[in-house]
Amino acid sequence: MASKTIYVLNGPNLNLLGTREPEIYGKTTLADIEAAVKAKARELGFSVEFRQSNTEGTLVDWVQEAAAKGAGLIINPGAYTHTSIALLDALSAAKLPKIELHLSNIHAREAFRRQSVTAAAVDGAIMGFGAPGYRLALEALKSLIESRTAS
Amino acid sequence: MASKTIYVLNGPNLNLLGTREPEIYGKTTLADIEAAVKAKARELGFSVEFRQSNTEGTLVDWVQEAAAKGAGLIINPGAYTHTSIALLDALSAAKLPKIELHLSNIHAREAFRRQSVTAAAVDGAIMGFGAPGYRLALEALKSLIESRTAS
Amino acid sequence: MASKTIYVLNGPNLNLLGTREPEIYGKTTLADIEAAVKAKARELGFSVEFRQSNTEGTLVDWVQEAAAKGAGLIINPGAYTHTSIALLDALSAAKLPKIELHLSNIHAREAFRRQSVTAAAVDGAIMGFGAPGYRLALEALKSLIESRTAS
Amino acid sequence: MASKTIYVLNGPNLNLLGTREPEIYGKTTLADIEAAVKAKARELGFSVEFRQSNTEGTLVDWVQEAAAKGAGLIINPGAYTHTSIALLDALSAAKLPKIELHLSNIHAREAFRRQSVTAAAVDGAIMGFGAPGYRLALEALKSLIESRTAS
Amino acid sequence: MASKTIYVLNGPNLNLLGTREPEIYGKTTLADIEAAVKAKARELGFSVEFRQSNTEGTLVDWVQEAAAKGAGLIINPGAYTHTSIALLDALSAAKLPKIELHLSNIHAREAFRRQSVTAAAVDGAIMGFGAPGYRLALEALKSLIESRTAS
Amino acid sequence: MASKTIYVLNGPNLNLLGTREPEIYGKTTLADIEAAVKAKARELGFSVEFRQSNTEGTLVDWVQEAAAKGAGLIINPGAYTHTSIALLDALSAAKLPKIELHLSNIHAREAFRRQSVTAAAVDGAIMGFGAPGYRLALEALKSLIESRTAS
Amino acid sequence: MASKTIYVLNGPNLNLLGTREPEIYGKTTLADIEAAVKAKARELGFSVEFRQSNTEGTLVDWVQEAAAKGAGLIINPGAYTHTSIALLDALSAAKLPKIELHLSNIHAREAFRRQSVTAAAVDGAIMGFGAPGYRLALEALKSLIESRTAS
Amino acid sequence: MASKTIYVLNGPNLNLLGTREPEIYGKTTLADIEAAVKAKARELGFSVEFRQSNTEGTLVDWVQEAAAKGAGLIINPGAYTHTSIALLDALSAAKLPKIELHLSNIHAREAFRRQSVTAAAVDGAIMGFGAPGYRLALEALKSLIESRTAS
Amino acid sequence: MASKTIYVLNGPNLNLLGTREPEIYGKTTLADIEAAVKAKARELGFSVEFRQSNTEGTLVDWVQEAAAKGAGLIINPGAYTHTSIALLDALSAAKLPKIELHLSNIHAREAFRRQSVTAAAVDGAIMGFGAPGYRLALEALKSLIESRTAS
Amino acid sequence: MASKTIYVLNGPNLNLLGTREPEIYGKTTLADIEAAVKAKARELGFSVEFRQSNTEGTLVDWVQEAAAKGAGLIINPGAYTHTSIALLDALSAAKLPKIELHLSNIHAREAFRRQSVTAAAVDGAIMGFGAPGYRLALEALKSLIESRTAS
Amino acid sequence: MASKTIYVLNGPNLNLLGTREPEIYGKTTLADIEAAVKAKARELGFSVEFRQSNTEGTLVDWVQEAAAKGAGLIINPGAYTHTSIALLDALSAAKLPKIELHLSNIHAREAFRRQSVTAAAVDGAIMGFGAPGYRLALEALKSLIESRTAS
Amino acid sequence: MASKTIYVLNGPNLNLLGTREPEIYGKTTLADIEAAVKAKARELGFSVEFRQSNTEGTLVDWVQEAAAKGAGLIINPGAYTHTSIALLDALSAAKLPKIELHLSNIHAREAFRRQSVTAAAVDGAIMGFGAPGYRLALEALKSLIESRTAS
Repeated sequence: MASKTIYVLNGPNLNLLGTREPEIYGKTTLADIEAAVKAKARELGFSVEFRQSNTEGTLVDWVQEAAAKGAGLIINPGAYTHTSIALLDALSAAKLPKIELHLSNIHAREAFRRQSVTAAAVDGAIMGFGAPGYRLALEALKSLIESRTAS
Repeated sequence: MASKTIYVLNGPNLNLLGTREPEIYGKTTLADIEAAVKAKARELGFSVEFRQSNTEGTLVDWVQEAAAKGAGLIINPGAYTHTSIALLDALSAAKLPKIELHLSNIHAREAFRRQSVTAAAVDGAIMGFGAPGYRLALEALKSLIESRTAS
Repeated sequence: MASKTIYVLNGPNLNLLGTREPEIYGKTTLADIEAAVKAKARELGFSVEFRQSNTEGTLVDWVQEAAAKGAGLIINPGAYTHTSIALLDALSAAKLPKIELHLSNIHAREAFRRQSVTAAAVDGAIMGFGAPGYRLALEALKSLIESRTAS
Repeated sequence: MASKTIYVLNGPNLNLLGTREPEIYGKTTLADIEAAVKAKARELGFSVEFRQSNTEGTLVDWVQEAAAKGAGLIINPGAYTHTSIALLDALSAAKLPKIELHLSNIHAREAFRRQSVTAAAVDGAIMGFGAPGYRLALEALKSLIESRTAS
Repeated sequence: MASKTIYVLNGPNLNLLGTREPEIYGKTTLADIEAAVKAKARELGFSVEFRQSNTEGTLVDWVQEAAAKGAGLIINPGAYTHTSIALLDALSAAKLPKIELHLSNIHAREAFRRQSVTAAAVDGAIMGFGAPGYRLALEALKSLIESRTAS
Repeated sequence: MASKTIYVLNGPNLNLLGTREPEIYGKTTLADIEAAVKAKARELGFSVEFRQSNTEGTLVDWVQEAAAKGAGLIINPGAYTHTSIALLDALSAAKLPKIELHLSNIHAREAFRRQSVTAAAVDGAIMGFGAPGYRLALEALKSLIESRTAS
Repeated sequence: MASKTIYVLNGPNLNLLGTREPEIYGKTTLADIEAAVKAKARELGFSVEFRQSNTEGTLVDWVQEAAAKGAGLIINPGAYTHTSIALLDALSAAKLPKIELHLSNIHAREAFRRQSVTAAAVDGAIMGFGAPGYRLALEALKSLIESRTAS
Repeated sequence: MASKTIYVLNGPNLNLLGTREPEIYGKTTLADIEAAVKAKARELGFSVEFRQSNTEGTLVDWVQEAAAKGAGLIINPGAYTHTSIALLDALSAAKLPKIELHLSNIHAREAFRRQSVTAAAVDGAIMGFGAPGYRLALEALKSLIESRTAS
Repeated sequence: MASKTIYVLNGPNLNLLGTREPEIYGKTTLADIEAAVKAKARELGFSVEFRQSNTEGTLVDWVQEAAAKGAGLIINPGAYTHTSIALLDALSAAKLPKIELHLSNIHAREAFRRQSVTAAAVDGAIMGFGAPGYRLALEALKSLIESRTAS
Repeated sequence: MASKTIYVLNGPNLNLLGTREPEIYGKTTLADIEAAVKAKARELGFSVEFRQSNTEGTLVDWVQEAAAKGAGLIINPGAYTHTSIALLDALSAAKLPKIELHLSNIHAREAFRRQSVTAAAVDGAIMGFGAPGYRLALEALKSLIESRTAS
Repeated sequence: MASKTIYVLNGPNLNLLGTREPEIYGKTTLADIEAAVKAKARELGFSVEFRQSNTEGTLVDWVQEAAAKGAGLIINPGAYTHTSIALLDALSAAKLPKIELHLSNIHAREAFRRQSVTAAAVDGAIMGFGAPGYRLALEALKSLIESRTAS
Repeated sequence: MASKTIYVLNGPNLNLLGTREPEIYGKTTLADIEAAVKAKARELGFSVEFRQSNTEGTLVDWVQEAAAKGAGLIINPGAYTHTSIALLDALSAAKLPKIELHLSNIHAREAFRRQSVTAAAVDGAIMGFGAPGYRLALEALKSLIESRTAS
């Protein structure tokens, strides 16, 4: 039976959400997002593995786990977005549907945040919608999963 | 009474959709997308101005018109994404909710397509989901419009 | 009989003047400027063709027209200042006295606005004086026209 | 029946030919070239659509039209050679035989004219032969058309 | 009582004016310019401190003096335009109306002269009008002074 | 009651101190430094959390902990100084007084060590004084803490 | 008595070997390699510590351990090859014989994989021979160990 | 009596033609091309020196010889196109009509093949037409020779 | 008898301290700093030569004088930090203990202020502590002087 | 019958081996290496063509010869490693097993020696093992030859 | 009567000669060089103005003086070699014979010393011969003066 | 007995001297220079090997020969100056006194001619004096030879 679990992986400093620079990232905490994501997923017929780590290698571990056990993957790689070839490789090797998500619009920030190294290995990207972006990503991921199953 | 019109603007060569390099952009035509967008918009309570032009200046004209008459804006600037400061300026001056959309994931393409000049002036960006991305963008735009009205 | 017409050409988004980011460009509208320019020109013994377009090619058309029919040219190329080789070529081919004008001081703005591609083909440049800069440019242009006639 | 029409498209400022910097481009006008091209084409059994525009988007429109109705395409993109991704995309999508032509040898000019963005999407390029280059291009195009038909 | 003195500061090698490369800078000497500037200033109701130095630090000293005692500042930083962060800082700290002036159009010269480091800290810039540019700058400066007094 | 704990965080390979390239870093071990830091801190009325890790994510964890529980922070990010946006973000979010410290003068080393990514988010930096630099940093940190309390 | 243990350290995603992009890395798994390496080492009179981690800091820990307890080191730093100054520093401080190994020829891959940051601190490098490269590296390492003992 | 000899010089690896990467360069051998070139030249009233060398210096020798004895020059500098200042200098010094030719369209290849160092010193360039390009080049060269004789 | 004089040299615009951009540099004047430095130095058993100049060459002169007569050197090169090879050379030749000091944290400012050319030739650097940084630098300098005398 | 000859090609200045900078390259001469290589090859059942040239074109000739007559190729391109597109092309066209070898570890040398242009066209690379590296390369080449024959 | 005076101008830190890094610059002092230069000049029939300054502007002053009163100019611009556009302009305006001299070979030093900004405006350059280079420069200058007089 | 032979090596296209672009290189032929060099050398007590080649590898051969048999070396590497690492290596290995010579002042030419790769391995450089520069170089070389013998 096909997996029904969606991995939602969050990178460094996202555990600070709601406290760090709320004028950029909003006041919602990561726990709020987790709750909203789980509710939405339930509605769509999925369960969720929702995690956060500050360590690049741990995120690589989890991407590999998602590839083995998950139905789809949403990743917000935080600061590793801009430098991590290790995450890029892990995502390339993970053949499940996957989406990169950013709370803020990285194209409107400092020069060194305008490029995504990791996004080269995902299906699609969604950025700039704050916490509600996670819900959008879930819907988009559902479509990706269904269209793969269909074809 | 507030505008109920969403502008959906499409840049150069998007009129070729469904014929040009379908392995990247899919087989759906721009007319198919227009129909789907209009159906979805109706459902969400909006009407749609759906247009395409190959000329940078015409797109600037339309962004200005959208700013004056529209409730929200979805723009797929095509090749002008990567070079047009004129569109960037028009979008900066347009104070309505606005989203940049790409059919393909620009981060996974040639180097000169990985940067978006225009995205610095939109609220959020959605890319890599093909034609269904337009529907996602409509939903995201609706949220943006509602949250502005609310605040 | 020598032409007495001065062309004043304005590039993309300058039609928004007075509404877009007034803290940078001031509150005067383009119509206000046109009126002031025409008044001043009359005083100096010139008539004025005052135009605005968002389209690069149209600006090229007008520069060619100015070269054929005008006594002098003032151009504010807006965003095309920084990228348009086509305008550079048109200006190079236009052998009448010509001035590039910017409302704001481009050297004090974002890095990508600090270089002018087009200015390499004009006689002189005036920037940072807001709407009154147009009057300065008219005076400067008059001197250029007279000194050419004299020599 | 296969099309017998060759599109010959000319970019910005080429309408000035014979007047602008004749030491670089020669004294022949664009009308002279059109006449010569049509004579030569007749000889080779083709008719010609010969056009010029200063607007990038119009050139994109015409490349799309050529792809739909033409037997082959010769394009001198003028200043857009060096910057236009929109033309590059239009040419990529146009599956007919196509040649990029320059009157002067772009490799012997200023640094910013030594690269061609658009040439990545044509079959071959001919440059530096002035007006007679158009005739060479017609012959080369005829060979390309014949070899495709043959294979 | 508000100061009525305008500082006109000239950077390295401008004392050679009229002798060095007259095909670029014209035959007028710096003494000629000083006389014309003083005449024009008198007409506008100002007195003038007109100075020249080859030493970057001396120009910094004078900008500081102008900030303390002057009504406005016109600076032609010569070669220091392109490299001097010290002058940039001095100009930033000088809160009086100030204009950067160049005899030639720096955008039409060698690559290393096309950027102005110092212009980021002035109100406006005027370039390419030769010696008459000083008179234009005086007029522009007068407007700046009056508009500040007014507001 | 306000925290009296100062976090002193040391990055990769600093546990090798006293053994690795002593001609650059000196012969003092990290244990020697810890002892000296604790003695000095006691004198100044502070306790110390003194730690070392080779893992970027662990350092991010500790910076977050310091922000929650500490009175001030001294960080020697070692090799992560030059690349870690994750540490930069963690430091930006940590609103306590903080100092970056390097044993050697990074400006006198290889090109890739001359830039600090992380230092953009600290109050001050001290480098080049070897092990005694830690005592200097403690004193400087005390001043920062006091001046904040005062204001 | 001198150590007889060789450390063989493998970086991020190498645990996926045999599954990820076999057209580049082959079908052999990391367990297969470990077995082959141990067999070969036994033949050469060495024991082997064979490890893999996705975490940069853990690899730094292990390089330090190898320096303290090992006779030689073979490292395949995976994606950290191209960015890790922390591994470079750890390798520089590790005075035992050491070899960098890559399964594929990094010079024949994407631009960002063509440079090795870490290889500046090893004795030699072997790349492009797939799994058999590990055996070659063991032989090469043995020579390095013997030649050091000899001199 | 004026020379009737055309030099056709071919650079490194062109002797492999018809065997190396035929999907890029076609199946025609260099001997085939030589035969075709000689036949065509005879028709046009010229004789041909047709040569190939892998050595940069030998190509420089031959360019010098062509300048002394030839009526015109066609050169396909192969890999030296992109780096050889020595060939550039030799071509600059050779005052006869000369054409650079490439079998493939260098603008459509890897980045390091998109620039031609040597083409700055020829009259015109023809690329992308495979073996038939040599015949085109002969015709173009004939025109160049005749127009020089005429003027 | 060894010198007991410490040179404290201040670069361009530091004489404006307390007036220029106090939000960056604080309200303390350079005279305040001089008084504090002299008091602190007396306490540590040193006398002080405290100077400021806007001229690069004068700072070079003084560094040479310090090398000949001083016990130690603290330099705040101001804007020359980022460009002066002449100061770098003077500092390299000055074999006394020396420290570079900045009031603000240069790593947190504009890109062109993040590199220090001159710091490559000092023992240590202290930045970001405002006026109190001078006292820290005196203490650090005392340690450097004592440790040199000791060894 | 398949060829049993291995080509070992050495580039510029390698004939100086044992005399030039022995602290980098060791004291072994090229003749010593040739002898060792031939002994080892005999043992492995191969004969050897061992050559050295200072001329890029000659090395290209020999790579072509190796492709036609050899069983495998070991090349140490010396200084041409970093610049020769001609050798890159020759190696690309040579479909036999091939290895690039360097005596020293190019990653630990000056910046301009850290990139290999030629290595993009070989199977594997071995560097940093001095003269014994040639023996390693022979073994590695034997494996490559055998695995090709097998598949 | 033509001037018989040669100006020998020395830039920053050259007054330290014989004390600063003698392994690079030798032990000869600037006074020694002055004596040798004057002796040699007398022999050649010239008198000498021999000067040194640490200030860029003073060197500019002296170059202007040399242009007005001297027969020829030898300049060792020291650190200003690499950055001074002001000196470049002064030298361009000085129409007398002029030579740039460096004691060391700048091409063999750090990257930022390998380019000379100022040398673009001299006749010839001599570097790497230490103090004796001044005598060579005098002889070379004499030839330049004579050949100009002759022509 | 020490060698009395000086090698004077000339690179590509120098055999054209006196014919190629005489406005840059003068009218003297290479044979004229050879005669003058030999006369001057005889006077100084040396014999001369005077050679020219267009082939990089041949120049490398000759530098090696000079190192083995010569007393000193003067090299004008022509176009290879700017690119040849092979010549740089040969010159580094050649421990005799050596001088790089250019007829023109390379700092005053096109950007790609302003850097010398090879000059990093010579003692001194002389440029810009045309043919007489060879005589200067001989004298400078004699001094180098004598000072080495002396020390």
